[in-house]
Amino acid sequence: MSKKKRAGKPPRQQTDERVGKSKKAVLAATYQLLTKSGLGGVSVDEVARLSGVAKTTIYRHWPSRESLLLDACSQLSSRPLVPDTGRLLTDLETLASGAAVRLQQPWATVMPSIIDAAERDKDLAELQSRIHSQMRGAFVAVIERAQERGELSRSHDARELVASILGPILYRRFFSRERLDEAFAKQVVNRALRNKE
Amino acid sequence: MSKKKRAGKPPRQQTDERVGKSKKAVLAATYQLLTKSGLGGVSVDEVARLSGVAKTTIYRHWPSRESLLLDACSQLSSRPLVPDTGRLLTDLETLASGAAVRLQQPWATVMPSIIDAAERDKDLAELQSRIHSQMRGAFVAVIERAQERGELSRSHDARELVASILGPILYRRFFSRERLDEAFAKQVVNRALRNKE
Repeated sequence: MSKKKRAGKPPRQQTDERVGKSKKAVLAATYQLLTKSGLGGVSVDEVARLSGVAKTTIYRHWPSRESLLLDACSQLSSRPLVPDTGRLLTDLETLASGAAVRLQQPWATVMPSIIDAAERDKDLAELQSRIHSQMRGAFVAVIERAQERGELSRSHDARELVASILGPILYRRFFSRERLDEAFAKQVVNRALRNKE
Repeated sequence: MSKKKRAGKPPRQQTDERVGKSKKAVLAATYQLLTKSGLGGVSVDEVARLSGVAKTTIYRHWPSRESLLLDACSQLSSRPLVPDTGRLLTDLETLASGAAVRLQQPWATVMPSIIDAAERDKDLAELQSRIHSQMRGAFVAVIERAQERGELSRSHDARELVASILGPILYRRFFSRERLDEAFAKQVVNRALRNKE
């Protein structure tokens, strides 16, 4: 931390702001490379070039390429809000439609890259599992709430129900590459719940 | 083609055999690298080293790394046999259980790699689509046969039915990484068909 006096803000705040700014630039550059070329396209050299932040500074904040990747990818996976419409069907429709929309945004192109790396790399398998847990978490929450209020029997396994909803949605996005819209998402939820009645 | 006389087999056959042998060695080395490190791990240098076949020879058969990759990956995707038990439920159970088993074999680790590349590369998107069509083809065949014999109404969309079966299976293998066994595969089929009655 610099002890030199400067005009305006106190030195610690100045340093913090500068650090915050360069960290942000590095993460933005990493994100840009990730969505363009997947994990394989991210090198610290390329991130330094694109962000204008020196490699030594990057390595000060992230000791390795892997730690930078992990950090950038964690920022990509935001936990969806848990809806509370009072009815399981509409809660799940909201979540499924939201997932369908998010799966068509640029960051979703990074998912297969992470899944691919997870097949071979323990840290990335851990990250993949975290991203998936966040995605699934909101679904499990609304299912368990429906079980608590007696709308759904406790004999149903929440994770199996999620598989029958997220499965076809992810399949359409990454395997069959067919149209993935709100209508399909709702239909998948309705089909999954029809078995619950 | 060499015109020189040799003992035993005629020269053309000798050449063909030699060519066949080195092509096989190259594809085997490519397969080995693919399952170990994914598409990113395959370079012609590495394939030459591992197979003992000269780079010039490799380039004679495959003009580029991409064409070699496409060829090796096509060999990986074999079309499953179409079962004919006389009943849609058991036909689909056979196919779903078979898919669950195949998805746990080494070549399946290459799938996310292909899906990842397909997000950015047209040729690999084409290959991914071919692999998926083969996987789906057998399912569609048994569903359409059930429709022909009147076991399943023609109002059902075969592709949606396949999504509700292959979706949860692929989800378990690549996203939630939970146990993927025959029991789960059969349960998925039963849940998907319950809606059809």
